[in-house]
Amino acid sequence: MDSKEPLVGIVMGSDSDWPLVQKACATLDGFGVPYETRVISAHRTPDVALEYSKSAESRGIKVIIAAAGGAAHLGGVLAAGTVLPVIGIPVAGGALNGLDALYATVQMPSGVPVATVAVGSAGPTNAALLAVQILGTSDANLRRRFHEHKEVLRKKVSAANDRIHRIED
Amino acid sequence: MDSKEPLVGIVMGSDSDWPLVQKACATLDGFGVPYETRVISAHRTPDVALEYSKSAESRGIKVIIAAAGGAAHLGGVLAAGTVLPVIGIPVAGGALNGLDALYATVQMPSGVPVATVAVGSAGPTNAALLAVQILGTSDANLRRRFHEHKEVLRKKVSAANDRIHRIED
Amino acid sequence: MDSKEPLVGIVMGSDSDWPLVQKACATLDGFGVPYETRVISAHRTPDVALEYSKSAESRGIKVIIAAAGGAAHLGGVLAAGTVLPVIGIPVAGGALNGLDALYATVQMPSGVPVATVAVGSAGPTNAALLAVQILGTSDANLRRRFHEHKEVLRKKVSAANDRIHRIED
Amino acid sequence: MDSKEPLVGIVMGSDSDWPLVQKACATLDGFGVPYETRVISAHRTPDVALEYSKSAESRGIKVIIAAAGGAAHLGGVLAAGTVLPVIGIPVAGGALNGLDALYATVQMPSGVPVATVAVGSAGPTNAALLAVQILGTSDANLRRRFHEHKEVLRKKVSAANDRIHRIED
Amino acid sequence: MDSKEPLVGIVMGSDSDWPLVQKACATLDGFGVPYETRVISAHRTPDVALEYSKSAESRGIKVIIAAAGGAAHLGGVLAAGTVLPVIGIPVAGGALNGLDALYATVQMPSGVPVATVAVGSAGPTNAALLAVQILGTSDANLRRRFHEHKEVLRKKVSAANDRIHRIED
Amino acid sequence: MDSKEPLVGIVMGSDSDWPLVQKACATLDGFGVPYETRVISAHRTPDVALEYSKSAESRGIKVIIAAAGGAAHLGGVLAAGTVLPVIGIPVAGGALNGLDALYATVQMPSGVPVATVAVGSAGPTNAALLAVQILGTSDANLRRRFHEHKEVLRKKVSAANDRIHRIED
Amino acid sequence: MDSKEPLVGIVMGSDSDWPLVQKACATLDGFGVPYETRVISAHRTPDVALEYSKSAESRGIKVIIAAAGGAAHLGGVLAAGTVLPVIGIPVAGGALNGLDALYATVQMPSGVPVATVAVGSAGPTNAALLAVQILGTSDANLRRRFHEHKEVLRKKVSAANDRIHRIED
Amino acid sequence: MDSKEPLVGIVMGSDSDWPLVQKACATLDGFGVPYETRVISAHRTPDVALEYSKSAESRGIKVIIAAAGGAAHLGGVLAAGTVLPVIGIPVAGGALNGLDALYATVQMPSGVPVATVAVGSAGPTNAALLAVQILGTSDANLRRRFHEHKEVLRKKVSAANDRIHRIED
Repeated sequence: MDSKEPLVGIVMGSDSDWPLVQKACATLDGFGVPYETRVISAHRTPDVALEYSKSAESRGIKVIIAAAGGAAHLGGVLAAGTVLPVIGIPVAGGALNGLDALYATVQMPSGVPVATVAVGSAGPTNAALLAVQILGTSDANLRRRFHEHKEVLRKKVSAANDRIHRIED
Repeated sequence: MDSKEPLVGIVMGSDSDWPLVQKACATLDGFGVPYETRVISAHRTPDVALEYSKSAESRGIKVIIAAAGGAAHLGGVLAAGTVLPVIGIPVAGGALNGLDALYATVQMPSGVPVATVAVGSAGPTNAALLAVQILGTSDANLRRRFHEHKEVLRKKVSAANDRIHRIED
Repeated sequence: MDSKEPLVGIVMGSDSDWPLVQKACATLDGFGVPYETRVISAHRTPDVALEYSKSAESRGIKVIIAAAGGAAHLGGVLAAGTVLPVIGIPVAGGALNGLDALYATVQMPSGVPVATVAVGSAGPTNAALLAVQILGTSDANLRRRFHEHKEVLRKKVSAANDRIHRIED
Repeated sequence: MDSKEPLVGIVMGSDSDWPLVQKACATLDGFGVPYETRVISAHRTPDVALEYSKSAESRGIKVIIAAAGGAAHLGGVLAAGTVLPVIGIPVAGGALNGLDALYATVQMPSGVPVATVAVGSAGPTNAALLAVQILGTSDANLRRRFHEHKEVLRKKVSAANDRIHRIED
Repeated sequence: MDSKEPLVGIVMGSDSDWPLVQKACATLDGFGVPYETRVISAHRTPDVALEYSKSAESRGIKVIIAAAGGAAHLGGVLAAGTVLPVIGIPVAGGALNGLDALYATVQMPSGVPVATVAVGSAGPTNAALLAVQILGTSDANLRRRFHEHKEVLRKKVSAANDRIHRIED
Repeated sequence: MDSKEPLVGIVMGSDSDWPLVQKACATLDGFGVPYETRVISAHRTPDVALEYSKSAESRGIKVIIAAAGGAAHLGGVLAAGTVLPVIGIPVAGGALNGLDALYATVQMPSGVPVATVAVGSAGPTNAALLAVQILGTSDANLRRRFHEHKEVLRKKVSAANDRIHRIED
Repeated sequence: MDSKEPLVGIVMGSDSDWPLVQKACATLDGFGVPYETRVISAHRTPDVALEYSKSAESRGIKVIIAAAGGAAHLGGVLAAGTVLPVIGIPVAGGALNGLDALYATVQMPSGVPVATVAVGSAGPTNAALLAVQILGTSDANLRRRFHEHKEVLRKKVSAANDRIHRIED
Repeated sequence: MDSKEPLVGIVMGSDSDWPLVQKACATLDGFGVPYETRVISAHRTPDVALEYSKSAESRGIKVIIAAAGGAAHLGGVLAAGTVLPVIGIPVAGGALNGLDALYATVQMPSGVPVATVAVGSAGPTNAALLAVQILGTSDANLRRRFHEHKEVLRKKVSAANDRIHRIED
């Protein structure tokens, strides 16, 4: 999957976020978008975080995805160091069940946005899809594949509708 | 401002959101990014909303920004109809002061992301900046201007730091 | 159950909502109210959603029930396309446990109401009962049956009271 | 406005809710739907509340609207005594700014629904519109007028869209 | 336990609240305070609720305890009908996990208080203890026993302190 | 007002709570219940707080009312030192607008209840009314006056109902 | 572990908090910081709490850590009696899952701070680390060990990063 | 005020926080504790933030205070770079009125604590007092002055108590 130069950099605050991140990876794989993954903590390895975001552009990364829970500063710290769009996945869990992560990711101050997706199970997939959409702004082929993806979603809903009526009969 | 073909489509649910949206416009103007603005209600003009998002790609729009409050469905409805990235601005106000708008914008189901920015005053500016970052993924000139923008922010903080110490002296 | 023309249209955003929706179906069955069920996603099949709500009135539907979770736009999208009363069931679950669904369903803007029932286990049954009450506004027989239903509830409470005192003795 | 027999009973918990309730009255007036208004407190005049809801059906009322704030029991108490649909308006205000009223209105137990509309400024108008929709299930003329109402909303959005572009020019 | 005339009336909204209520009963048993228990629903048996609270004073009841969840109107409905102090136990559970019950119980309007205790496991015991304290305002013997109860609590804490240090050693 | 020995002790955490507390005083004055007032801080004068609650019973106090905001420990600290019933008024205000005060007052652990009334404007009056109800458990005259008070409330609601209809005519 | 005079006093409101507190103990053990542990309830043993905090300074304690849940007054009560820094651990659990404990611990009034750490699993460890940092302000050796601790954290993140890439390969 | 080498470093995310920070300065001035102030943004000047916290220890700073609102990462970013204790002031304001700042400050992950004080008006003063308490762990003179400070607080409460009774008379 790393044969091509990565276009998306996926960063997680802890390897406990790995199962979530794999859902994002699977989605990117489905679109053939090359990516790289990193475990970087905004609080335990702040220099690595800043260095990663500062160097991402020159290494050819186009979009950064950051997954973190609790006082989820990872997205914000990465966004501080780069002009690339940063997508934040607030990770559910803990006593506040991700409400802290949602607020800490989305409520960024003027000047430094983090594109936040849903806290909960839809987050990682949607972060990857948003990255595909962003790359698609300059890649007609990716947009075409996203149209196909939307068609697949439509068919799944249609199939679910059929399935329920078979159950009813 | 509309001399060039618009790259960003800014949609607001009500013209009461116009003062907020103007902050986004001013930011895009600062980067020289052409845009168009529309008042479209997800609930009062659902056909217009769906038609707008379906036709945006073919009209050359690259990014859609949606501003709405309350049960803020506008971002989601637009995202439903397009493969373009949709940025959602949850508008504060009302009895729940925008918490409803934040949840209704960010908690999108798997398959249809909305890139959500902060509820409150930073939202419109950051939505525009995020649009610039997205366009910048294929436009080195925009990335360069965003680096300059970050330098401006740094100098503002530095100037604020100086100002406070002059007060103290 | 579909021998008579349906008066109630029950729409769910995903077939994962089917177990909840069945509770609504069972309640309507108990009152002999004919209904139809559909899986339609506001975000994955927006055209189907709009078409469904626009055509419901002419097909003889009197009341629409919509069940959805997360950024629950389904009720609002259906209400946008029809003059029929739309009842929204906010589905619990996810990181915010349905608070997002409650806000996204109930906080509709002026002009487009969604009649919202409880998030949690009482929602589906109460949505169906509300549909019966609505149909009952022009059907004295249904109102009579609802009086009987209330009598059943009273007896159940009375029986529970008796049961507890037998335990105490 | 009371020349015809009232079809809608509007009950408020306190005369401080009167300005809100007048918005509902104005909406019903616009549709030519006759109604009556009452100040009844679930906690200060519980007998009146129960008597009102028990007698409403036989007096020809078809829909009840209840507006209350805080521990807003009014909708629930009225729903307890009738088979008519009861619409609850949670009134914003107080230290919890209507979140208490929203929860106390919408979270009704299985068997006794209250059709809840938005807490905040959209609530009273939408409660009245929902009442019109309910009456419309057996009144094609009201449904026709509601179609006209939706057309008015569409035109207002369109006019707002035009207005903004005039400002921009 | 019913040999003496009951001084406390414990009302629960559903027999599913019985395990919680038994904790209150056990506490009253420990103080030798006679009580009665009832299952009465504010919404399913509103007449019974009102009748119960209106007649409680004349039957010799001194304090009423009400346990209910969701849109917990039981305490408020009982308080509406009596001059006796009413203690409300908000029952945890459901999608909002008792936050709805807490708000619906405690946020009573001016004129009709409900003495609210904790939502969660401490609620039933503390409701019973509060009833004992209230009865104790005119019963020196009960106050003496409550002093003993506080001494027992002190000793339990002291014993827990000792236990932990034995573990540490 | 202090000619008779006080039966109720009203404690406030700060003299900024004085305007709220005066509403409680006025209510007690209306019932002829003698009381005393104190400014005692759980955090700034903990010894005074503990001494006050320990000595209250022997000084003839029957009920304690505590008003405090923020991390409102006053009710709990007073309850820790006495067997008398303690009524807590969570004071609204501050960044969390009294939600902190509500939780800190009501969520007492097993063994030490605080009878909590509404956060917001109804709190002080209802705390006083609850104190009257508690004293009324052994004072038929107070219960009779409370019946009169309830009759006054009923008439006020009835008058408000009349007033609105005069406006309508 | 008690051979040296304790510098940190760890107080828990109940022995049910013992498993959490042991995480704090383990952290202090790792830094070689002597400590003592106590079970003291702010509500059941208020005199012990006040006596403990008043005597702590003279017994050589430098920092107090308090762990409590619900209406978590323990930190505040201890802070009331001492000039030593008090660290509060809000314990998750109960119907509000520690949100009550968080607010009751952190929202202290002006004059009496409690240094609050995270509600949830990070709380106890971080409370101990904060105590080490506080002691480190006058102990260069402890600061050196804390630098080593930060290096260990960095290496753990780096190892997690390596581990994930081995999985990917 | 800068004649002596600063022991406390006060950092604010924006000069709009200056009025709040001045309250902390005034408190430190009252104790004669030298300090320095800086405007540093975690997101706009991340290098400055990291450099500041890394160099603070060697420059003789003993305690860092960080004030920030919204997705308040400043405390966490500073804590990431230093072994000194970091005190976080969550700044109220914005659509979520500081709840975002509270969660983003207090919910730090294991290993990197931020000592959080109240969101709202008590925060800045209490942050400064906590800094004094921390410095006091190795400075008996500061502890003595803090005892005097507590005595002043006690007298203020006593005076407020007297004032109220003069009003009553």
